[in-house]
Order: sequence, then C-alpha cells, then structure tokens
Amino acid sequence: MPTEVDLHYPQSCPFCTIANAYQSTPSDSLSSYVPSSPDPARVSPECHLILCTPTVLAFLDILPMTRGHVLVISRRHAEKLGDLRDAEGGALGSWLPALSRAVCKVTGVSDWNTVQNNGIRAAQVVPHVHFHIIPRPETVPSLQARSWTMFGKGQREDLDDDEGAKLAGEMREVLRMELGRAGEAEEEAGKAKL
Amino acid sequence: MPTEVDLHYPQSCPFCTIANAYQSTPSDSLSSYVPSSPDPARVSPECHLILCTPTVLAFLDILPMTRGHVLVISRRHAEKLGDLRDAEGGALGSWLPALSRAVCKVTGVSDWNTVQNNGIRAAQVVPHVHFHIIPRPETVPSLQARSWTMFGKGQREDLDDDEGAKLAGEMREVLRMELGRAGEAEEEAGKAKL
Ligand SMILES: [Zn+2]
Ligand SMILES: [Zn+2]
Ligand SMILES: [Zn+2]
Ligand SMILES: [Zn+2]
Repeated sequence: MPTEVDLHYPQSCPFCTIANAYQSTPSDSLSSYVPSSPDPARVSPECHLILCTPTVLAFLDILPMTRGHVLVISRRHAEKLGDLRDAEGGALGSWLPALSRAVCKVTGVSDWNTVQNNGIRAAQVVPHVHFHIIPRPETVPSLQARSWTMFGKGQREDLDDDEGAKLAGEMREVLRMELGRAGEAEEEAGKAKL
Repeated sequence: MPTEVDLHYPQSCPFCTIANAYQSTPSDSLSSYVPSSPDPARVSPECHLILCTPTVLAFLDILPMTRGHVLVISRRHAEKLGDLRDAEGGALGSWLPALSRAVCKVTGVSDWNTVQNNGIRAAQVVPHVHFHIIPRPETVPSLQARSWTMFGKGQREDLDDDEGAKLAGEMREVLRMELGRAGEAEEEAGKAKL
C-alpha cells in the first residue's frame, strides 16, 4: 500500500527524495532559508544543501562538470520548465542572482553558464525541473572537448563528500552574509521612515 | 555631448537599443504586456518582439540555433546574471514557463534548452543578461555535431524577416490567449468570492 509520502513524491525521482528530506516553512527572514548545518546523510548519495525554501532548493551536483557546479530545483515535482506555475518560475529566478554570486565568490571563477534542460533530446537526465549553475574556470581541457549533446553524460567525476561539505558550507556562509546585509539595509530603511 | 538616451543606455549594446525602442508601462493585465503588432523596423536588424514589460522583454534570436529560438532579457542593462537584483531575476523567471509553452506550441517541439551564459569563457556574446530558449527538434544534424564551446558562434543562419514576423506573431497569439484565460479565471475566482 502506498504511504502518505509515496502519494506526494514520485518514489523514483531523486530530487523529490531530496525535497522530502529537507523541509522548510515560510519565513520573513530570507537568511533563514540558508540551512545552518544540514545533515548530508539524510539522503543517499549525500546531499550538500545550500538553500532550502518552501518553493526552491539548491545543492551541489553529485557529478559536477566543474568545481562548484550547483543545481537549483523547484520543490514541487514538475518535469519541464513549462510545467511550472509562474510563481514557481519567479521564485527560482529570484534566487539565481544571489546563488550565482555565491558560486563565483567561493570558486573564484567569474564566468559561468546557467543551463536548464527539458526532455531527452535536450539532454535532461533527471525529469524534475532544475537549473545548473556551472562555473567556467580558465582551463578545463576535457570540458572544452566535450560536445553539447554529451552535456548530461560527459566525463564527470563523482563529487567527493568531504570536498562537497566544505564547498557547500562556504556557499551557505557567503549567501547568509549577503542576505543578512540586505535584511539590515531593509531594517535601516524602515527606521529611516519612522 | 551625450544625449539623455546615451546616458541611460550604453550605445554599443544591441539589447539596450531594443529595450529603448520598445517601452512599457506597468499594468494590472498581464496580457497587455504582449504587444499587438509591434513594428519590427524600429531597430536594425529588425526585432521580432514577443513580450514587453517594464522589467523583461522577449524576442526572436536573429541567429537562431533552431527554428523558434527566443531570447528573454532584463530591460535594465546588466552584464551577468549575478548583476541582477533579486526582483529582476524573479521577473525573468516568472515569464520563462509561459514563454517556453508558447515556443513549444508554435514550433511543435516538446524538448528545449534554457541557457544563460555569463562571460567570454561561458560563450556569452552580447554582454547584457539574456536567457536563450532553444527548441530541440527530432533531427538537426549540424546541431548534434556542434560543440559546447561553439555555442555562441556555431553555424547559425540569419533569421528571415518574413518568417520571423510570422513566428513571433504566432507566439504572441498563444501567449495572449493563455494570459487572457488566466485573467478570466482570476476574475471568476474573484466573482465567486463576492
Ligand atoms: Zn521530482
Ligand atoms: Zn540536469
Ligand atoms: Zn544592454
Ligand atoms: Zn547569447
């Protein structure tokens, strides 16, 4: 018999497994959406979580194309970008600038691709909407030889869990600091109005 | 001496030229953001506009990788995604689902990539934030041989202006119908509450 969880989360979807393992409640403080020390072992393979909101999650890709490769997903299961509601697309989009800045700051790389694949012919591997943030460092010889169509299956090496934990921790730190500053600025602006 | 326009729009940026040529004022009706019959010749090369809001514009790529290749840009000039404000990223993201559906419906293609490049090493050609929506039809032999790094400079043929006008018109039609239906549903929901 299907359990409550089975009914809500397609069992075979690895991103639904992650979304289910890391819950979130609405909050007025954006920085509270950056988890403090989330347990990577709540799912297998380990998940190095960076962001966890009621609508959006971000974590390290377990098969990174380059160091710092991050995935940003909708919490709700939807296969393609066109299956999302406007507000879900908006929530994803609103986090991409800050997440991109965090990836750049932690990796020290200033160039990156944001890629979101829909369907097999577009090299989508996991059928749950996600944006890839892929840093483009100065030299990645194997990457330059890789073809577009091999995007989903290229020569990608498993993320080391210790390295992943360290990277994700640094990204959360950068993100939390930026959101904290933004919150303070808002508070100051509020005070100025009084 | 720089004119008012020079001061606000970097002269050399083709996307700022487009944003400047097609203005928009805030509206409660989303479908009013789909222009009725915008003049493609307001800029050169011609622009086949699909969406025109105070924050976001969408139009056909003049060097399409495949038929129906659409660009979605921020109205404000910013080079990289990390240079956007959260709200601008949110506005871009909120239009991606509906624009994707319009591209799929008009081209009859169900698979597509959403790609956003930042910096030269990431194959960014125009230094103004934009998302590519690129349909992936069943057979595009030359595309399959194209490498990732050639993304910005691949064998792309100029968009024919007549074909572009027809395609963009169909996409606006699909988008306007969907937004109209959503507006009606909202109105009905409003009535039901009374
Ligand atoms: Zn899922
Ligand atoms: Zn993927
Ligand atoms: Zn510009
Ligand atoms: Zn481009």
